[in-house]
Amino acid sequence: MKETTMSNLTIDAERLWDSLMETARIGGTPDGGIARLTLSDDDRRVRDWLRAQCDALGLTMTVDEVGNMFATRPGAREGLPAIAMGSHLDTQPTGGKFDGVLGVLAGLEVLRTLDAAGYRTEAPLMLVNWTNEEGSRFSPAMLGSGIWAGVYDRNYGDARADVSGDTFGASLDRIGYRGEAKAGAIRFGAMFELHIEQGPILEAEGIEVGVVQGIQGMRWFELTLTGTAAHTGSTPMHMRRNALLGMARVIEGIDRIAKAHPDAVGTIGFLEISPNSHNVIPGEVRATIDLRHPSDVVLDQMQAQVDELVRNAAEAVGLTHRLEQISRTAPVVFDPECIASVRAGAKAAGYSTRDIISGAGHDAAHAAAVAPTTMIFVPCAGGLSHNPAESTLPGECAAGAQVLLEAVLDYDRRMSESRREAAA
Amino acid sequence: MKETTMSNLTIDAERLWDSLMETARIGGTPDGGIARLTLSDDDRRVRDWLRAQCDALGLTMTVDEVGNMFATRPGAREGLPAIAMGSHLDTQPTGGKFDGVLGVLAGLEVLRTLDAAGYRTEAPLMLVNWTNEEGSRFSPAMLGSGIWAGVYDRNYGDARADVSGDTFGASLDRIGYRGEAKAGAIRFGAMFELHIEQGPILEAEGIEVGVVQGIQGMRWFELTLTGTAAHTGSTPMHMRRNALLGMARVIEGIDRIAKAHPDAVGTIGFLEISPNSHNVIPGEVRATIDLRHPSDVVLDQMQAQVDELVRNAAEAVGLTHRLEQISRTAPVVFDPECIASVRAGAKAAGYSTRDIISGAGHDAAHAAAVAPTTMIFVPCAGGLSHNPAESTLPGECAAGAQVLLEAVLDYDRRMSESRREAAA
Repeated sequence: MKETTMSNLTIDAERLWDSLMETARIGGTPDGGIARLTLSDDDRRVRDWLRAQCDALGLTMTVDEVGNMFATRPGAREGLPAIAMGSHLDTQPTGGKFDGVLGVLAGLEVLRTLDAAGYRTEAPLMLVNWTNEEGSRFSPAMLGSGIWAGVYDRNYGDARADVSGDTFGASLDRIGYRGEAKAGAIRFGAMFELHIEQGPILEAEGIEVGVVQGIQGMRWFELTLTGTAAHTGSTPMHMRRNALLGMARVIEGIDRIAKAHPDAVGTIGFLEISPNSHNVIPGEVRATIDLRHPSDVVLDQMQAQVDELVRNAAEAVGLTHRLEQISRTAPVVFDPECIASVRAGAKAAGYSTRDIISGAGHDAAHAAAVAPTTMIFVPCAGGLSHNPAESTLPGECAAGAQVLLEAVLDYDRRMSESRREAAA
Repeated sequence: MKETTMSNLTIDAERLWDSLMETARIGGTPDGGIARLTLSDDDRRVRDWLRAQCDALGLTMTVDEVGNMFATRPGAREGLPAIAMGSHLDTQPTGGKFDGVLGVLAGLEVLRTLDAAGYRTEAPLMLVNWTNEEGSRFSPAMLGSGIWAGVYDRNYGDARADVSGDTFGASLDRIGYRGEAKAGAIRFGAMFELHIEQGPILEAEGIEVGVVQGIQGMRWFELTLTGTAAHTGSTPMHMRRNALLGMARVIEGIDRIAKAHPDAVGTIGFLEISPNSHNVIPGEVRATIDLRHPSDVVLDQMQAQVDELVRNAAEAVGLTHRLEQISRTAPVVFDPECIASVRAGAKAAGYSTRDIISGAGHDAAHAAAVAPTTMIFVPCAGGLSHNPAESTLPGECAAGAQVLLEAVLDYDRRMSESRREAAA
């Protein structure tokens, strides 16, 4: 049967690009970026646009109580759970045109391609637009998928407030995207999220498609080193308790620790010194430490090394220290069957691949806790994202969409076959 | 003759302390500090107070065109240049009760003591209150003594504006302290400035009096290191250009360079990182480097080492750098005869001493370019100054004033003797 074999379908690269450029005007900024904060009027407009496109394809749209949108296309067989595609349409205040948007619009393009070809999968297909992935208006990030997965309570979500005091719940009501479905009532059997890499690896290596193996675990710490603020001219070197000198050793040490563990990253990105005056020795320095690795075991080792590093640096300079964990996210390992389908899909489509770990968080992390899930990465220029200059070329977007199509068809075929075998 | 030998005069410690506490109420703050910015109404009040005290002693007060106040007590012999004492009565916005004020009021106490004893020096004595030492309202610091010494032009001084746009010149006119004497017309033959150390050395070593040898030369640089801002999660360690890592190596290196040169200090006190976000690798870091040493030769060596340090740190991390000198002050070497008088005076008064170099700038630096000059330091608790908690004990203030008295008498005696010998 046609439905159980890979097809020679090809997505329409121009149609995909036109949709990307059309939606980029909703909240578009003069510098070529998008400022489309979650639950804003522009978010309502792009949601209305998406709903209209789904209606045109005859999909069934369901919106849940936190605004997550699920558009379903029936499959050929009864009783199979849906295979989902999607990502998010909200952006950072200084967002680009591809982060999140590509994953939704490529899913739409897959459905349009299947529709145009009259191709029906065994399982239903589903297009998902998650609410508030970015978290820049309402913290935390990935809130819609988090509530959907049961990580957060709906009331917790509703009460999140932006800087002007508007809440998530009131904003959702205001734009008319509070659906009737309970969060989590709509489930699927698997999820494929296409996304730009937001890192430099694929571009640097000239690879077209990243086969994403999982998402790094992440641990954040706040470190405060306290010494004595004193006059830079009249305080001899041996009488100083220079908090910035201690922090310099921590910065160097974090870099050394991360480099000693393959696939690890470690960074101090935020740093504040006090009193921050040309002629005063820094009395206090505060920083956040960001450690990431795909394995919690390695993260435990790194954390122990950071503990020791901080203790030693503080002691050597005569400082006191306070090191507190402020955030922790467990690593996510994606589903091997989903990964196999991405690999097979990329091969069928003729694209070069490499295995890759996501360094950034994604809705797929929450989805993976509920259903077999994986991601597909395409390059972005210079690894740049959350920036108006974010750039992925039309051919790169098309490659991602084509692999998404092939992966979904492969997964659909293999899952239905295995079910058939199991039933036989 | 009585005038040519050291006398057993003792300053009145209580009278000195009372004057310190009385003037501390002029611009006094609830936390025990003083906010008496230069050329403010409070500065006028404290100047009026000083003038009244000098009048009561029968001194001749001359104010020059930039508000510097010179009160003269005649000597016994004709034709000798005056021996000056003094400092400044203006304070920082969050100033303490001793920085500058002690030097003026101790000079006043010396004159009161001589007056009460009916003691006449060979040379005239002079009490000086310099305008705008602090520089916190009108930049640069030490402006009054600087114009007096010919380092700055009077018109330059008049045009200096504070944050509200008021100029130095207009403010001077407003408080009525623009005198008729040309800046620099009033000269003296030597100058002794008593000051709190503003550093921790004397207190830490339990020494009562610092015999100041000079003032460190100072060079300030602005350093900008530029790498690439990128996502902390998705940018592998080997693909980073982390500007903060480069700066950490510069911070460590500055400390190492300063420690390698005896009497040197080197500090980064101001540091700003961009974009300063938890999950972004710092793309740019800006800092100021402060190098000080009593010798320009050593400062040249240190500067060359810093150049090399910055180049190496930037290159190793793949950064670009910009290193610019933003300020330079030559070292000041105080006059050996003045220093000898301080040493002799402290010995006569029975106080412990150590040689010390001033790490902070003082009016004495400008005075030293015109006439033999030195300074006397007394301890301040924890080395703290420019702070309401600035603290020097009554006994420490009295020790400084007594040594000032003895040093001035010693210098007067030795100078008149040598003139007599030269004339013989």
